Amino acid sequence: IRPVPAQVASVELGPYQHFMQKEIFEQPTAIANTIGNVEKIDFDIFGATHADWSEINQVLILACGTSYYSACVAKYWIEALAGVSTQVEIASEYRYRVSVPNPKALVVVVSQSGETADTLAALRHAKSLGHEKTLAICNVASSAMMRETMWKFQTNAGTEIGVASTKAFTTQLVGLYFLALTLAKLGKSPTPIHEKEHIDRLRHLPAALNAVLALEPQVIAWAQQFAKYHNALFLGRGMHYPIALEGALKLKEISYIHAEAYPAGELKHGPLALVDETMPVVTVAPNDDLLEKLKSNMQEVAARGGQLYVFADVDANIQASAGIHVIRMPENYGNLSPILHVVPLQLLAYHTALALGTDVDKPRNLAKSVTVE
Amino acid sequence: IRPVPAQVASVELGPYQHFMQKEIFEQPTAIANTIGNVEKIDFDIFGATHADWSEINQVLILACGTSYYSACVAKYWIEALAGVSTQVEIASEYRYRVSVPNPKALVVVVSQSGETADTLAALRHAKSLGHEKTLAICNVASSAMMRETMWKFQTNAGTEIGVASTKAFTTQLVGLYFLALTLAKLGKSPTPIHEKEHIDRLRHLPAALNAVLALEPQVIAWAQQFAKYHNALFLGRGMHYPIALEGALKLKEISYIHAEAYPAGELKHGPLALVDETMPVVTVAPNDDLLEKLKSNMQEVAARGGQLYVFADVDANIQASAGIHVIRMPENYGNLSPILHVVPLQLLAYHTALALGTDVDKPRNLAKSVTVE
Repeated sequence: IRPVPAQVASVELGPYQHFMQKEIFEQPTAIANTIGNVEKIDFDIFGATHADWSEINQVLILACGTSYYSACVAKYWIEALAGVSTQVEIASEYRYRVSVPNPKALVVVVSQSGETADTLAALRHAKSLGHEKTLAICNVASSAMMRETMWKFQTNAGTEIGVASTKAFTTQLVGLYFLALTLAKLGKSPTPIHEKEHIDRLRHLPAALNAVLALEPQVIAWAQQFAKYHNALFLGRGMHYPIALEGALKLKEISYIHAEAYPAGELKHGPLALVDETMPVVTVAPNDDLLEKLKSNMQEVAARGGQLYVFADVDANIQASAGIHVIRMPENYGNLSPILHVVPLQLLAYHTALALGTDVDKPRNLAKSVTVE
Repeated sequence: IRPVPAQVASVELGPYQHFMQKEIFEQPTAIANTIGNVEKIDFDIFGATHADWSEINQVLILACGTSYYSACVAKYWIEALAGVSTQVEIASEYRYRVSVPNPKALVVVVSQSGETADTLAALRHAKSLGHEKTLAICNVASSAMMRETMWKFQTNAGTEIGVASTKAFTTQLVGLYFLALTLAKLGKSPTPIHEKEHIDRLRHLPAALNAVLALEPQVIAWAQQFAKYHNALFLGRGMHYPIALEGALKLKEISYIHAEAYPAGELKHGPLALVDETMPVVTVAPNDDLLEKLKSNMQEVAARGGQLYVFADVDANIQASAGIHVIRMPENYGNLSPILHVVPLQLLAYHTALALGTDVDKPRNLAKSVTVE
């Protein structure tokens, strides 16, 4: 188990207008603190040993809300980097259905508070089915999930006060990336990974994030336009589809704009019918293998009069034109790109809510930790 | 392989205003034709033998759009009835990511046309990874998917002309239910099933469906109200969550109302912020183990001024009151309930579109079969 540093987040607002904005800007620090002093990948990061995990042949991640989306990103990472089959399930669904337990699976629960009622109940349900290999990824060391799992990873995001989760999400992603790298040590993937490169990329994340945060003025300009919309679609593909989901959720939670995410390949199977000039389409466009496919999805939207708002990697070669607005992300960040691409979506939601005058830190109808069903 | 009866659907409209309406009302016949002369469950339904399938330890279903939602229902059925672990994946996502192939998995592709570009490419991708056990569930016997899979099941829905799929969906569910019952014969579930009861329930489906179709006048009355909304949420839990997804998709496709579905347990993790008097909440409320949980989700909506439109089983004990509108489904249909509960959602989408005057059979921006990426 890694030592737990003191909480990093002051509960003072400092120069920020809202805790959510402060927490968005604390992400470079929160991520640095979550990476901590890890210099090589070892089972010890989770308090485990190689022997403890050697039999693992599957991962099952249980979570709710924003934490569920971080788990969805992790599925792509774990299968691609570690070659271990991964299922992700909404905790409130898992706990009430008849499932097929695999005692060799590692059951992972992800939760900021570590007290989310459905996730905690899902963990207990999994244990009742005979699952003994359990891991919690939480932000609160003393929480029920951290007590009731065999292994644990604490995200050191510091206290998160804004109801709409931001730094808890990105630090969960760091923990889950460590999990993918650690599981890769089981040798199940045909492609070995270069551990040092991954660690170096992780360590550079805070600097890369600062460059993304510097895009705030451009995002504010978009937010002024977004404040007039009542609906929005968010598109992503691959490991950026859950980022589109998270971006849509942020906008929903604090601006009350009805935003919905789709994997871009599903556009033609229905949601394209919604697209007209009143339905902006936010697109997460990293420069990855799916870029050309994504561009063709974007053309479908543009051809129907949809307004595209594209967060494109600097080398993605997407030009602004009539109906296509582009903000360039500073660098293409490979596997860790979701951690960067979510940040401008957090800022877009924040500044749109600000323009609309909603209560950003305490959106209507929602509570910070859902500790009842 | 079962004998294939002649196509049942005339391409004439008869007394109906649109093909979609006609196809909704053809569902009792389409389902009867899909059940055909099956009187006992046997691997032969899929052209397979017990020996062919005896090693199967997992199911992977690949599909797009509406077919993807039928696959999501099947996951609940296969895990609960057959005890075989099941993953469902959007074809356009699966084909482009690094996944972990399991050669003992049965790979199932589901598609009305059998030519859906992404699903066909996903099938070929699975085969390239070493998957040899492949099954197609399609409505067109001569299609590429039916030619390129080892085993097949033809849904005998007859020609479907409306772009928004209806009878193809419910007949796919029948095929997938047969699959769950057949896989149960592998003996992996601790709870044996009573085959005859399941077959009897299947055979009674057309009559049960006719009773649901008789609810049309009540649904028309709701549709008049829905035509004034711009957004909607659809809630379901368990195997009715994919039914909520399908209901929202239908409304999107043909009425252009922005409808989105959530598993009801996720409501408090974000979408509840959207709920006010302008956001109707359609709720699929079968009388199952989750009913009490669902009622508590409904209370959360009602307490925030949301208008609830509830399709409740007759014995679900949900009363209409201020802000809670109820249509009673004629009977609680157990595991096969999703096939009944989707029908009033199809009718709601159809009659809302009719009230709005959209081109129901050819909604804007969409094609019947997506045979390009």
